[in-house]
Amino acid sequence: MSEKSTDTGARLKIQARIMLDEEIAFGPGKADLLDAIAATGSISSAGKQLGMSYRRTWLLVDSMNRCFQKPLVETATGGAHGGGTRLTEDGVDVLKRYRQLQADIQQLSTQHFPEFKPLLRKKPLPSSR
Amino acid sequence: MSEKSTDTGARLKIQARIMLDEEIAFGPGKADLLDAIAATGSISSAGKQLGMSYRRTWLLVDSMNRCFQKPLVETATGGAHGGGTRLTEDGVDVLKRYRQLQADIQQLSTQHFPEFKPLLRKKPLPSSR
Repeated sequence: MSEKSTDTGARLKIQARIMLDEEIAFGPGKADLLDAIAATGSISSAGKQLGMSYRRTWLLVDSMNRCFQKPLVETATGGAHGGGTRLTEDGVDVLKRYRQLQADIQQLSTQHFPEFKPLLRKKPLPSSR
Repeated sequence: MSEKSTDTGARLKIQARIMLDEEIAFGPGKADLLDAIAATGSISSAGKQLGMSYRRTWLLVDSMNRCFQKPLVETATGGAHGGGTRLTEDGVDVLKRYRQLQADIQQLSTQHFPEFKPLLRKKPLPSSR
């Protein structure tokens, strides 16, 4: 769902971040991470799927869990098949609301982009300095 | 109009950027710069007003002018009072449309933020690593 840095041409990129003081409590990267954790049931598998180091993946999970009143991700320990990581009820909720916000943003983007597109070049002129 | 990094507490920050390949053709900083150029009639005065170096200010103007088909900013040379810098018709147009987009974004933000706010802490817990 997140925009790759390899995108080319003219486009309107609108990014929503939930900030808490200086910290990004939630944004496009964390939303993708929650999707990957829900799909894989594991923090390390989710990180691998997104091409992130385990350390970075862990730090993103920790950041979300420190910003929200209740953790968004929980890891169960023990049991017949060992542990497992999953989204909490709040995790599912925040992800769903954020995806809805992104859908509304996409609509706004689609609506406004034609106002700018005809004024833009196909690609930037080379820098004159 | 742009959000300061000193903002605190919980907030939903939605930022719109017009991208052209890897270059930011237009965004919140460039919009503020166009406003300042319109107000001061000078690139250097506009930069000072925004606390930017002349070099950075000049590079932002150059970037806009390289991304759009027609320049957004033009500098007149000569005349009785020497030169003067102002927005072109396209400059006025792009700025106006971008501010309208920002207003629509603000409305979306106001509408969605209450979905997240009650789930957030007042401030992040300290990092556990």
